[in-house]
Formats: sequence, C-alpha cells, structure tokens
Amino acid sequence: MSSQPALAVSTVIFALRSDATGNLRLALPLVRRIRSPFEGRWALPGGPLAENESISDSAARTLAATTGLTPSYLEQLYAFGGLDRSPALSPDDPTPERVVSIVYWALVGSAEAEQTLASENVQWFFADELPELAFDHNLIVEYALWRLRNKVGYSRVAHGFLSERFTLAELREVYEAILGKQLDPGNFRRAVEASGAVVPTGERLGGTKHRPPMLYRYNSDFDLTDQGPLNPNRKTTGASA
Amino acid sequence: MSSQPALAVSTVIFALRSDATGNLRLALPLVRRIRSPFEGRWALPGGPLAENESISDSAARTLAATTGLTPSYLEQLYAFGGLDRSPALSPDDPTPERVVSIVYWALVGSAEAEQTLASENVQWFFADELPELAFDHNLIVEYALWRLRNKVGYSRVAHGFLSERFTLAELREVYEAILGKQLDPGNFRRAVEASGAVVPTGERLGGTKHRPPMLYRYNSDFDLTDQGPLNPNRKTTGASA
Repeated sequence: MSSQPALAVSTVIFALRSDATGNLRLALPLVRRIRSPFEGRWALPGGPLAENESISDSAARTLAATTGLTPSYLEQLYAFGGLDRSPALSPDDPTPERVVSIVYWALVGSAEAEQTLASENVQWFFADELPELAFDHNLIVEYALWRLRNKVGYSRVAHGFLSERFTLAELREVYEAILGKQLDPGNFRRAVEASGAVVPTGERLGGTKHRPPMLYRYNSDFDLTDQGPLNPNRKTTGASA
Repeated sequence: MSSQPALAVSTVIFALRSDATGNLRLALPLVRRIRSPFEGRWALPGGPLAENESISDSAARTLAATTGLTPSYLEQLYAFGGLDRSPALSPDDPTPERVVSIVYWALVGSAEAEQTLASENVQWFFADELPELAFDHNLIVEYALWRLRNKVGYSRVAHGFLSERFTLAELREVYEAILGKQLDPGNFRRAVEASGAVVPTGERLGGTKHRPPMLYRYNSDFDLTDQGPLNPNRKTTGASA
C-alpha cells in the first residue's frame, strides 16, 4: 500500500473531582499541544504507535510520559479512522493526513489522579465543560462518556471510583456523577440491593453518629463483562495469544 | 515513523445454521487463503485498509468481495495489534511483519446467509468445530464468541437471528445456540417475561394445534446498548463527526 495511514494511540482517563461547590463530577486530564496541527489546543494524552510495542503498551507509555498517570489497566475503547480527522499537513498538499487512532480508557481513583504531572501543559477538565479540543477529540470523549454511562448499568464499572468498602451514599454519589443527574436515595438503595451487585460487609462506618451507615463491598461472584481479551482475569477456554 | 505497521480489516459474521441432526448452531463464513503466509488455511474475510475508505467501509467492501455477504450494519469489535501476529515475510528477514487488524462483526439471518458466494474457497464452519486458522484468527473468533455470549445478557443481540415476531421456543433456541447449552423452558419463559425485553403481540402462530404458541416481538422501548458511535439510531447530545 502506497499510503498507509499513520497509527496513533490516545487515552481517556476519567476520575471524580470535586468542583467549587463540593460536588463530585467526572473529569479527565488533557495535554496542551505544543506543535502543529492544533498548536495550543487541548488534546487527549497519546502519541504515535511505537514500532516494537503492543498497542496497549504504547497507550500506557504515552499516557505516563505526558501526564505521569499509570492506571493498572487500560481497556480498549474504539478505533477511530475517519478520512478527515486531521487537517492537511501544508497548503501545498491539500490532502488531509490520515491518522487511525486506537483509543484506550480507564477510571482512576482520586489518590491516583493526584499523581498527575505538575505542568502548565497538563490539566484536568470537567467532562461537561470541555473547550474545543484538537482533532475529533470532543467526539471521542463524548463516545467514552456514552460507553461509561451505558456500562454503569450492567457492570461494576463504578468500582473504579470507590474504596474496597463504601456506603450506599458514596455509591450513589458515584452513580450521580457518572450519569450527571440526581438519584432518589430510596429507589437507588432498593435497586442496588435487588441487583445483588454489592453485599453488606456487616461493618459500619466509624464515627460518632448514633447509627452510622453500613459499609458494603462489591460482590465478587457477580460476573464482570466486557473486559476485553487482554484482561488477565478473563476465563479463557481455548487459544491464547 | 520508519516502520508503520500495516493496517487490515477483518469481519466475524455469525449466523445460525442447522447441523445434520437439525439443531441450530452458531456458524461463521471463512475464506481460504490463496497466497502466503498461511496459504491454504482458512481465515476471516477481510483485507488491507484501502486508502480512501473509512475503516467500516473497508470492512464491508472486503467482506462483500470475498463472501458476497452485505449485512446492513457492522459493529466494531476490537483492534488486534500484537507484535507477533504474522510470520516473517522471508527467511532473509526474520522480523515478523506487523499487522494491526481492526475487526468488525455482525449477525445475519438465515436468508442473508444463503447469499454467500458459491466458491470452493468460501465455506461456513460451525463455531465450535473450527480448524486451525491463519494468523491469530482462532483467538479473534474466540473473543467474538465471548462478546456475543456476554452481550446476549444485556442487549437484544439475539434479535439479529429472529423474525419480527417469534415464539418463546424460537427465542430460547437462539439463546441455546449462542450460549451452547440447553435452557430450562419454564425458567427461560419466566426470566424473559420478567425482563420486559419482549412483549406478546396478542397473536398466535398459525397452524392446526389446539393452542398454538403466542407470538412475541422485541420491546422497542427497551434501551439498546453498545451500538457504537456510528449507529444512526444513537441519540447524540453534542458534537457530530
């Protein structure tokens, strides 16, 4: 093939961050571009696929290099490869450069989010207050949000934002941040208890309240879904890579 | 980058086919390779990504060219890009050729499956009776099966194999073929009715039985999940590509 598209990796990393009023909201780290195209615009962390590296290793390495973040597991989200994702390289050659980006995503806890590199070119943004990003990165973030919001209904994806043990109020706060809306506490409690996805630990939150709230944990008997073929916990039945 | 990996597309197309004993089983079309590497082995339909074509268009075109199949919608499955997916091109250059394959999948009905090209180099195989395939295609099929089996639990993916109206026995037969195991008719009926995913049409199957079975349809109010950003029915809230 005379004109192979360039291959790149990008990552969408979600964490919950408190806003000025103390509400938890979904946020993601972005990196300011320091060269053309889109110089000065914010973009997802990433870079070209390296020659002797698997795609996920490239994603992890470029994420660490640009943001300092090292999540324990990156999940593949989607490969974006439209024909007009990048502008032409120069006015003399009006053909847009073709870049296929394989995008990974992960959730990180607040403590992990604090490890972000201190740099004027790295910054966390609330997911619902993004500026106009480089390339088609707004669309990619929109798709990642859509997947996250879908997934919260059928997997324990919210776990990524919680400690091992948590109260139902904490779990609800995570769901509210992901879904971007308030949930009725009573309905939420009933739905969660009926699902079997979390179980009471028998312990209660420490403190001075008369009846401190019960601590729950995720039910490890509950099936994880959609972790992809690279998940070391996945039960395989046949060929291995 | 001095050595960009080659980019290819492949497709995993599932249909239900009757075996010699009349049981429905999952099957997929494969194409015999007529050149090196893996000459003579069966492989997933596909080919190199074309220069001026989106990834999904390339997947659809190479599928049609090799098998004659033209499903109305292909969903992106995964991008496979391990370092050792292909053998070295020649003994003089022991470095394996690097190919990143973006894999799409679809379900097709029996009538559509009948449109397959008549060719000695195209053949349907039962998913649980595959020979050793070219490249890492056994692994790719294994992953596609895993996704299909997972997905049947939280989406109406089984719809792809059914007519608009169907009996609960037909629906159960589809689930049995996907999951590769027998299901208890009573438990299945109760689980399906409780889910709200299908609704009775009020009509019954024609025939001479005293009480012919009720016909059901999928509940279109039930949310579809995970159709990807290219799904024209997806409700978007922001940027468009």
